[in-house]
Amino acid sequence: MSTTTINATALFDWVKMVFEHHGFPVDDAHQAASVLLSADLRGIDSHGVARLSGYLRLIDKKRINPRPSMSIIHETPSTATMDADAGIGLVSAPAAMKIAIEKAKNVGSGWVAIQNSNHFGIAAYHAMMALEHDMIGFAVTNASPLVSPTFGAERMLGTNPICFAAPALNQPPFVLDMATSAASNGKLEIAERANKSIPEGWLMDAQGNSSHNPSELKQGGMLLTLGSDAEHGSYKGYGLSAVVDILSGVLSGANYGPWVPPFVAFLDPREDQPGKGIGHFVGAWRIDGFRPAAAFKENMDHWIQRFRETSPQSSDNPVLIPGDKEREQQAEREIHGIPLVESVWNDLQSISKQCGLPLVNQ
Amino acid sequence: MSTTTINATALFDWVKMVFEHHGFPVDDAHQAASVLLSADLRGIDSHGVARLSGYLRLIDKKRINPRPSMSIIHETPSTATMDADAGIGLVSAPAAMKIAIEKAKNVGSGWVAIQNSNHFGIAAYHAMMALEHDMIGFAVTNASPLVSPTFGAERMLGTNPICFAAPALNQPPFVLDMATSAASNGKLEIAERANKSIPEGWLMDAQGNSSHNPSELKQGGMLLTLGSDAEHGSYKGYGLSAVVDILSGVLSGANYGPWVPPFVAFLDPREDQPGKGIGHFVGAWRIDGFRPAAAFKENMDHWIQRFRETSPQSSDNPVLIPGDKEREQQAEREIHGIPLVESVWNDLQSISKQCGLPLVNQ
Repeated sequence: MSTTTINATALFDWVKMVFEHHGFPVDDAHQAASVLLSADLRGIDSHGVARLSGYLRLIDKKRINPRPSMSIIHETPSTATMDADAGIGLVSAPAAMKIAIEKAKNVGSGWVAIQNSNHFGIAAYHAMMALEHDMIGFAVTNASPLVSPTFGAERMLGTNPICFAAPALNQPPFVLDMATSAASNGKLEIAERANKSIPEGWLMDAQGNSSHNPSELKQGGMLLTLGSDAEHGSYKGYGLSAVVDILSGVLSGANYGPWVPPFVAFLDPREDQPGKGIGHFVGAWRIDGFRPAAAFKENMDHWIQRFRETSPQSSDNPVLIPGDKEREQQAEREIHGIPLVESVWNDLQSISKQCGLPLVNQ
Repeated sequence: MSTTTINATALFDWVKMVFEHHGFPVDDAHQAASVLLSADLRGIDSHGVARLSGYLRLIDKKRINPRPSMSIIHETPSTATMDADAGIGLVSAPAAMKIAIEKAKNVGSGWVAIQNSNHFGIAAYHAMMALEHDMIGFAVTNASPLVSPTFGAERMLGTNPICFAAPALNQPPFVLDMATSAASNGKLEIAERANKSIPEGWLMDAQGNSSHNPSELKQGGMLLTLGSDAEHGSYKGYGLSAVVDILSGVLSGANYGPWVPPFVAFLDPREDQPGKGIGHFVGAWRIDGFRPAAAFKENMDHWIQRFRETSPQSSDNPVLIPGDKEREQQAEREIHGIPLVESVWNDLQSISKQCGLPLVNQ
């Protein structure tokens, strides 16, 4: 497959310019570009610049507000709710996380629910903001419905990711960032591009039959929850996805379940919405609210080392620590650039043309 | 299979008496019996009175302290760490949850990590304590190692459960209480008693090969994490189990990973322990720290109703809400009593005999 490799800094500068061109204040454009590029750097290609043209279409449709007045509409010393004023989650979630971190500094933990928002990129960016403060970070979001609960044959939940990030001392941080579906949308896209069938347990077609064809998702199909079937605990994946939906949607006053607005501009949100926009939920625990941070981080090093030494099933396939793959990808891409598949590269070129902006430097 | 059915109140009184006989203060015996019986009532038979003889053996071995002096060793307005003084989790976890709820009343949320504890029964009991206060409850615990991480062939994690409980208005509460393994230990015990083979994706034998024989777990076998294999996201189940271990063990200063002390008295804890006892982590978010509780609970009713109406794969198998099965079981057992399988009933009779206590009333 033909790919075009772009220097990460050049891509960042270009993305920032595109957001500014679409009305974002400079700081917000910087923030949004940072979150987007962090996905491309970490190898989560489905959540990086591949999303940019979709965001721009939502701005054109006035579903994403490029200059929102975000406000805190409810608050206690350790909690708050933010109204993101239809802004993009790439900006609202980091702003909320900053508030959560301040609250954690003051009272030990901080939690911010966000309503009236839009797609927030990768959860890991937001949760990882806690790390440099010796805090544990947490970030979840609901998402447009693509996933069926156990025993169901209807799109009721998003891939509703959970991120949990904890710092270590000499070891890299522990960063779990996972969709609560068995397979992510991104994995299906990769299979579709490669014209490959997908394993049993990822997808149903629109009629609720098991499907091995990744294209079925675009034809009304449904992703399965983590666990894939009831015998293997799919009700747990459903339950976790529901928890994400309750924290992000119900607790914030955003939409939830099948009412979460679609990410694509060509589908309109439902008219009978029970809440406002998409919801997120972010937070931080201050480690020394529980024990000295140095002691915790020493034990995290010990934990990580011991788990790396787990007796493996096969000596060429060692046990990994959550975050290992993404960190290795980032180290590689910071040096060698970000490979963009042809469709994404074409997308970026079209954006330049449409906006009358220079092409991104190769 | 022969079962003996016991009235729940009679069983509660008897269990309380047994704990008192073993040196528990009256209030602690009451609390411990409440947690144990809540498991039997909710149909989580593996975590109810079936565990009692095991607890008593740990008391005899002085690994469970029946009269602990529990203390808060670290604190902020929204966080605390409790040293349970080798007490049982059936008592320490509700005590910690009360503190978390008080903190949530004061500052919006409360989180308590517990070190130096022992088995805490079902996570749902603790998390559900939040419900009557219009709070969302959270409870996790680590557990003795039985589960291998993805790509591993070594017992490194417990079945490390996660419970999340949120109240509704007219609907029953949402209560997700799940092991982070593909199948719980209890499910293997049921298969073993029935002499049935188990599905692919639950268990490996001691050599790391896939196994369909539930007895292999007692012969050095290993449970698989939720997702079962890497292709179906077992690294997510591993990651979630690790999060539970980090919150319960590393953050509290308890043991973690393969060092978590075994639940059985015939196995001694490792000598090179990095922490103290078993760890738990409990907490509560006050709903009106985010939005008015009435509005949240109305939306929860709406959420629950809509999910119940999910188009089903088969009309005789509707989509359930987490907690439905356990609540129905409880309603049934409160009226008709708790059925005990022969081995458990024999166990209780032996306890009576050994302690010179009356038999539980049938």
